[in-house]
Amino acid sequence: MADIANIVADIAAEMAAAPHRGKVADYIPALARVDIGRFGIAVILADGTVHVGGDADIPFSIQSVSKVFMLTIALGRVGDALWRRVGREPSGSAFNSIVQLESEHGIPRNPFINAGAIVVSDIVLQGSDVRSAAGDLLRFLRFLADDDSIVIDREVAESEAQTGFRNYALANYIKAFGNLRNPVEDTLQLYFNQCGIAMSCRQLAAAGRYLMLDGRHPATGQQVVTARRARRINAVMLTCGHYDGSGEFAYRVGIPGKSGVGGGILAVVPGEASIAVWSPGLNERGNSQLGSLALERLSEATGWSIFNPPV
Amino acid sequence: MADIANIVADIAAEMAAAPHRGKVADYIPALARVDIGRFGIAVILADGTVHVGGDADIPFSIQSVSKVFMLTIALGRVGDALWRRVGREPSGSAFNSIVQLESEHGIPRNPFINAGAIVVSDIVLQGSDVRSAAGDLLRFLRFLADDDSIVIDREVAESEAQTGFRNYALANYIKAFGNLRNPVEDTLQLYFNQCGIAMSCRQLAAAGRYLMLDGRHPATGQQVVTARRARRINAVMLTCGHYDGSGEFAYRVGIPGKSGVGGGILAVVPGEASIAVWSPGLNERGNSQLGSLALERLSEATGWSIFNPPV
Amino acid sequence: MADIANIVADIAAEMAAAPHRGKVADYIPALARVDIGRFGIAVILADGTVHVGGDADIPFSIQSVSKVFMLTIALGRVGDALWRRVGREPSGSAFNSIVQLESEHGIPRNPFINAGAIVVSDIVLQGSDVRSAAGDLLRFLRFLADDDSIVIDREVAESEAQTGFRNYALANYIKAFGNLRNPVEDTLQLYFNQCGIAMSCRQLAAAGRYLMLDGRHPATGQQVVTARRARRINAVMLTCGHYDGSGEFAYRVGIPGKSGVGGGILAVVPGEASIAVWSPGLNERGNSQLGSLALERLSEATGWSIFNPPV
Amino acid sequence: MADIANIVADIAAEMAAAPHRGKVADYIPALARVDIGRFGIAVILADGTVHVGGDADIPFSIQSVSKVFMLTIALGRVGDALWRRVGREPSGSAFNSIVQLESEHGIPRNPFINAGAIVVSDIVLQGSDVRSAAGDLLRFLRFLADDDSIVIDREVAESEAQTGFRNYALANYIKAFGNLRNPVEDTLQLYFNQCGIAMSCRQLAAAGRYLMLDGRHPATGQQVVTARRARRINAVMLTCGHYDGSGEFAYRVGIPGKSGVGGGILAVVPGEASIAVWSPGLNERGNSQLGSLALERLSEATGWSIFNPPV
Repeated sequence: MADIANIVADIAAEMAAAPHRGKVADYIPALARVDIGRFGIAVILADGTVHVGGDADIPFSIQSVSKVFMLTIALGRVGDALWRRVGREPSGSAFNSIVQLESEHGIPRNPFINAGAIVVSDIVLQGSDVRSAAGDLLRFLRFLADDDSIVIDREVAESEAQTGFRNYALANYIKAFGNLRNPVEDTLQLYFNQCGIAMSCRQLAAAGRYLMLDGRHPATGQQVVTARRARRINAVMLTCGHYDGSGEFAYRVGIPGKSGVGGGILAVVPGEASIAVWSPGLNERGNSQLGSLALERLSEATGWSIFNPPV
Repeated sequence: MADIANIVADIAAEMAAAPHRGKVADYIPALARVDIGRFGIAVILADGTVHVGGDADIPFSIQSVSKVFMLTIALGRVGDALWRRVGREPSGSAFNSIVQLESEHGIPRNPFINAGAIVVSDIVLQGSDVRSAAGDLLRFLRFLADDDSIVIDREVAESEAQTGFRNYALANYIKAFGNLRNPVEDTLQLYFNQCGIAMSCRQLAAAGRYLMLDGRHPATGQQVVTARRARRINAVMLTCGHYDGSGEFAYRVGIPGKSGVGGGILAVVPGEASIAVWSPGLNERGNSQLGSLALERLSEATGWSIFNPPV
Repeated sequence: MADIANIVADIAAEMAAAPHRGKVADYIPALARVDIGRFGIAVILADGTVHVGGDADIPFSIQSVSKVFMLTIALGRVGDALWRRVGREPSGSAFNSIVQLESEHGIPRNPFINAGAIVVSDIVLQGSDVRSAAGDLLRFLRFLADDDSIVIDREVAESEAQTGFRNYALANYIKAFGNLRNPVEDTLQLYFNQCGIAMSCRQLAAAGRYLMLDGRHPATGQQVVTARRARRINAVMLTCGHYDGSGEFAYRVGIPGKSGVGGGILAVVPGEASIAVWSPGLNERGNSQLGSLALERLSEATGWSIFNPPV
Repeated sequence: MADIANIVADIAAEMAAAPHRGKVADYIPALARVDIGRFGIAVILADGTVHVGGDADIPFSIQSVSKVFMLTIALGRVGDALWRRVGREPSGSAFNSIVQLESEHGIPRNPFINAGAIVVSDIVLQGSDVRSAAGDLLRFLRFLADDDSIVIDREVAESEAQTGFRNYALANYIKAFGNLRNPVEDTLQLYFNQCGIAMSCRQLAAAGRYLMLDGRHPATGQQVVTARRARRINAVMLTCGHYDGSGEFAYRVGIPGKSGVGGGILAVVPGEASIAVWSPGLNERGNSQLGSLALERLSEATGWSIFNPPV
């Protein structure tokens, strides 16, 4: 992989010039005004080497990518008991999740769709309050990324709350089935806070390193999670990380990843690399158009795919 | 992996004695009368070494495992044009597939649910007849497994046809949307023939070797499919190979696999192993209860999981 | 009601000239080639007076209107036991019926959607054969209408069979749940025969007289069905007779009725009138565009609505 | 109808002793503690004669019966423009309404399911505030019933708000599609207020008189609504007034009616009678078990059914 620097540079160049960039999420002003011309990439290898390209140091709203870190915290709190309140199957339906909640009695299909992430937030909030729980998440991200500059974008969090009627519907619906323990408003405030976290590609790739390293923090060697849990979080990312485009992403890219409506994707090649890409334009499944394409190019150029024999 | 022989023997012993064995499929007599006490395993390593345990040489009805091989043939015939007629997303719904067909206008979600496999059969049948097309599949399996004794169990195929009202419903429904080209009866006859193929674990693991070897036949070195196609078939197996238990299987086992209602599972560790397990009792998702457990044990003991760093 | 003749004439004149006539069903050639300019109406009062307008003597394909008569026969055969195999609730969903069959385990919602009518045909067929059962229906209609010239249009019946993939899907699906007793092919042949019956407005209105007369045949005074059963068939027509447009028809017209894809509607004002209208163009719910409008005009002009105080 | 007094007395006696009384709604304490032994009936004839039986003067929570009066008010405010925001088709699905909202983009099927009634409340609230709008409804009911003692049960209204997570989900979901104009909290407060109205059978039957009298108030002769609108409200009650048991009620009883989870039913025989029954035990469709049975008995004994020829 002597030429990884070149590969990253080539991808950044191609994406900077790409004509078809998808459509920026426009349901809140703070996302709608992001420049669709942006593209960033950061690749951190297992040995700690960092390769970046494009707008790798510009913070963006990580949105649903935060679900990976909240799941990690919640599993740390309650262990496998979490799976009694959230499933781990792909939602796999063009019907979206509120239909599924009805037929499956308030148990969301997986922690990476909104309904499931709301239950995960409810678990993290348990015995605490919104401010403290949001602080816990922020400290965890700063620790994982070795970077104290990560913050929550207040404007984004507040806009999410003001326009989040569908999330209010989901949360109330789950509550009606008895699968939320805290007041709906509190759980959602935490959820909106996590959506509002702003990180750059460099920071996000750094935060994801434990998932490529059998659960270890690279600086301290400390186990953030057990190797088994790291492996299993990667599995859930692969099957559920791109909403109803998860099968397509596995087929084309073959790397566990989690996307967010802000245009970011965290992708993890076990033992090899932690990768973050960002481009705000989304495809019709709600995943970053150029982010997906960049990861497909990267997989092709490096041979990184969990469906390949080890390189 | 010096101890793989021991691992396989230990698993076979544990499964032979396992008290909870699931429930044998009983919709046709030929399946209903299979002894629930059976368990077989065959592991073929990349270097060609074969390890077997339990009832590894007893033929069983491979049923939906045949969908992997039919997909391979169909992709060989029409290439990526296949994906205009079948999706590649997990069906991911406790609602089963006929609901999805209605909302998605006759395009099945993936080639590994019945609806999708019927469309794949329709593609393989195109320009041929049922007898010839079934013969093609049989020859392909014999070639892959280097074993001319593989046959179609006529009793099973005929029973499938006589009781397959749900499959007739699916096929007619797809036909109503214009997504079958042959007469419903012909396409289904081919489909029932493929379900009736009988293979042992040893034969099935042998047939699956090309998927661990970047698409190459181990004896001749010939590319059965390109490396990219082998990788992509593995990806579809991981996200869609166990019906609505695919996420669970990825989470627990972490190996691409395809199960059948006869109790068999083909599992592929890229670059490492082609594995077949068989035990006729099914869990509540319709996948082999002990077959799934055996693969979980094997993954734990060997470290084989595509979500682990390479061993 | 001295001026009913004038009302009928006015309606016929308005409909003959109406610019928006809907869209003729085109799934079989025999329906597709019907002249969209046609409109017929026949009103038979309780005293036997007949008023006709437009193309009242031209036979058309009654299609689903036949479901009323088949339900009458089936209730005569098995009585209320019929309701263990078919419901009597509106299907009430833009999702069409195969979705409902899955969630309700093969029990169709009501006898006036295709799925339910297929079960009704299966009941009528029981202990007989297709030819005899179709003959029974034909004799029943000739008796009701006092008209031996009513026939089955063979071309229509055969075209239905050749293109009826969705009906084959429904029937096989119901069979998979054990709710068909005869071979799928036989039940469907009877169903396609009933769809192919050709009647004029005059004949259809005559055939419907028993439903306005407490179940009595007007010529003989014989009870075709009990008064209670006549009332209940009218109730099912009101809530379920126009597919997912039944609520709209009740709201606008307020008269029990059953429509068919051939453009015919039978409507019954208890104690007052038996009415048939026909115009082949359909609205977006699959009901006759001008037939519905004509009945709305008739209801307004006469005060005939079951939601009005008696006139 | 000389013996209507006897009929009512007989029904009251039978229902007082009936062994199978259904199940009292228990989602809020104020409903759960209602004595399941209660049964009341009030019949007001077109000439003003009143016949009562059982607990006809005990107030109960009218719950969803209020939807009839709110619909009347909303139609008075915005006329047929209301139907752009709510449909008038039976929901007709064992799937309940949130599924339908997703597939039909936030337009509830009809004004008599919760989702539709929430939109109706939103219309009534427009340009006003919760207190005033609730006051308007109360004044309207007092005017219709000629009875100033009708009140809102505050405990019920507040309990509804505290446990109404499913209604919060519905309202937020509708808001997400842009079909609520007021803040969710305000619209729901009005909705919970209307659910909390307490009326006796005598009061409820009195309030419903305009629907049997072509829209006229019996005391003043004033048109509360036009005759056409009265007829159409009756039509919507018939097709949609008993949730997914509307077809069954039409089949058995044949009278337009609206039920509530408090066990009350308002039923209207155009030109003949306004009827209220109450018994708190519900059947499996959520309609009063004995209330439905009492109306079936009344229909049989009197011949009152809109599907009968006029008596």
